[in-house]
Amino acid sequence: MNVFSTIDDLRQQRWVDPTSAWGLIPTMGYLHEGHLSLVRQARRENDWVAVSIFVNPIQFNNPDDLTHYPRNLEQDLALLRKEGVDVVWTPAPHEIYPPDYQTYIDVQKISQRLEGAARPGHFRGVTTIVAKLFNVFQPHRAYFGQKDAQQVVVIKQMVKDLNFNLKVIVCPTVREPDGLAMSSRNVRLSPAARQQATCLHRALTTAKSAFEMGRHRAAELHATMLAVVNQADLARVDYISVADPETLSELETIEQRALLSLAVWVDDVRLIDNIIVKK
Amino acid sequence: MNVFSTIDDLRQQRWVDPTSAWGLIPTMGYLHEGHLSLVRQARRENDWVAVSIFVNPIQFNNPDDLTHYPRNLEQDLALLRKEGVDVVWTPAPHEIYPPDYQTYIDVQKISQRLEGAARPGHFRGVTTIVAKLFNVFQPHRAYFGQKDAQQVVVIKQMVKDLNFNLKVIVCPTVREPDGLAMSSRNVRLSPAARQQATCLHRALTTAKSAFEMGRHRAAELHATMLAVVNQADLARVDYISVADPETLSELETIEQRALLSLAVWVDDVRLIDNIIVKK
Repeated sequence: MNVFSTIDDLRQQRWVDPTSAWGLIPTMGYLHEGHLSLVRQARRENDWVAVSIFVNPIQFNNPDDLTHYPRNLEQDLALLRKEGVDVVWTPAPHEIYPPDYQTYIDVQKISQRLEGAARPGHFRGVTTIVAKLFNVFQPHRAYFGQKDAQQVVVIKQMVKDLNFNLKVIVCPTVREPDGLAMSSRNVRLSPAARQQATCLHRALTTAKSAFEMGRHRAAELHATMLAVVNQADLARVDYISVADPETLSELETIEQRALLSLAVWVDDVRLIDNIIVKK
Repeated sequence: MNVFSTIDDLRQQRWVDPTSAWGLIPTMGYLHEGHLSLVRQARRENDWVAVSIFVNPIQFNNPDDLTHYPRNLEQDLALLRKEGVDVVWTPAPHEIYPPDYQTYIDVQKISQRLEGAARPGHFRGVTTIVAKLFNVFQPHRAYFGQKDAQQVVVIKQMVKDLNFNLKVIVCPTVREPDGLAMSSRNVRLSPAARQQATCLHRALTTAKSAFEMGRHRAAELHATMLAVVNQADLARVDYISVADPETLSELETIEQRALLSLAVWVDDVRLIDNIIVKK
């Protein structure tokens, strides 16, 4: 496994064989089973598998969240080595954003809703770094987790709009045995908050059951989810949404498919989760 | 010479041989000797030469300018065939901007000055279409004319910031025998305006002479250029600038190099020109 930090070193390796297929998994490190499931799928589908590890400052709207974002490069590299990853890129911030940096990418409409509304500037930061990573690696396939549902929709729209020559592959959310979606931020939960953090997944599965029993009005599903979260006394809802899975606009009634998603503060950690329901 | 209109057809040709070097000349058509000089340089430096012809609506801040932008595809194709171009891409607007299109690229600081100040949204349109063309063609080299001096600076910044894996090649401005910089818009000049349109180049060369005779204060060069333009009664200055060639910030005194540039309405046609001076 080759670990590079500069763009030049990485590109040299990337173009050793211009005919081989590359898969890229962009990450912010502190890797868990969710990331590794992406790595394994990439390993099956490509000649070369590359992972980037970079905590991207411009996608953090909250400076505290950036400061406390967990990091453990040694452990990350050990995990990736075991998965047979070929290349890891760990650039320094100044390699990514030199002092005169001034270019940003906006996906306008679908970046405004949900996480975009709650975290101003977040998706501009995400699309900008992802476009840079796409240009640095020029991969054939790029892998993202369904856990960040809106991120996936926004990145797919950017890829389509800007004509990136690659395929976005979305892998299912990986969960702890009790249903909590894996996230690097989970480590910041106190034992009590960790226990209550399952309320997100319970809210989603409860709403899904209601949907499958014929409740197709968004307001009812909304109320169902809110009730479940409110049972957890450390939890505070940021938003609950029943939206079209492509446009992310809120639905009144689910005709075919819907993205149920929510953001919840559990104690002082903000968690998100989602599920797609269909008739 | 292959002429394609869809992205799929173009990509198929592009990747026939992944090891060959491609040069791209992005154009809005109505080609003149300026464009052809780019084509010739690309022909010398690459295995494959591709030209795109697309009048990009989102870079026109003035709807009138878009409506009147000259077009002549038959003539363009004949000229490119003579130059030994391999591939011409003439996409329809809906191929470039489908109905749900919503992604834009901003180069922030250097897009605000000069043309950016005079034409709000212009450079967002330019950088967005150029990034799309870069992703469609994935060229090794892309060719632009020095006549659009700020465009070159903005595109170079975008390429650097977003890590596009290609080289931006800038070719000298090609001029009519009387000094007028070649431009597709020149065809819209009345005979009287055409005659007076030489005032831009005369202003620049007069200022250059003054600079070479030791006048290094921007205010003096500014006044020199203004006086030359004001001799032409159909001409109205939009801006005159003495700026740093990289940052485009206005200079008080020229230490090493400067970009002298101006935009002038001659009758009802807006023309631009520039020259770089150095000690």
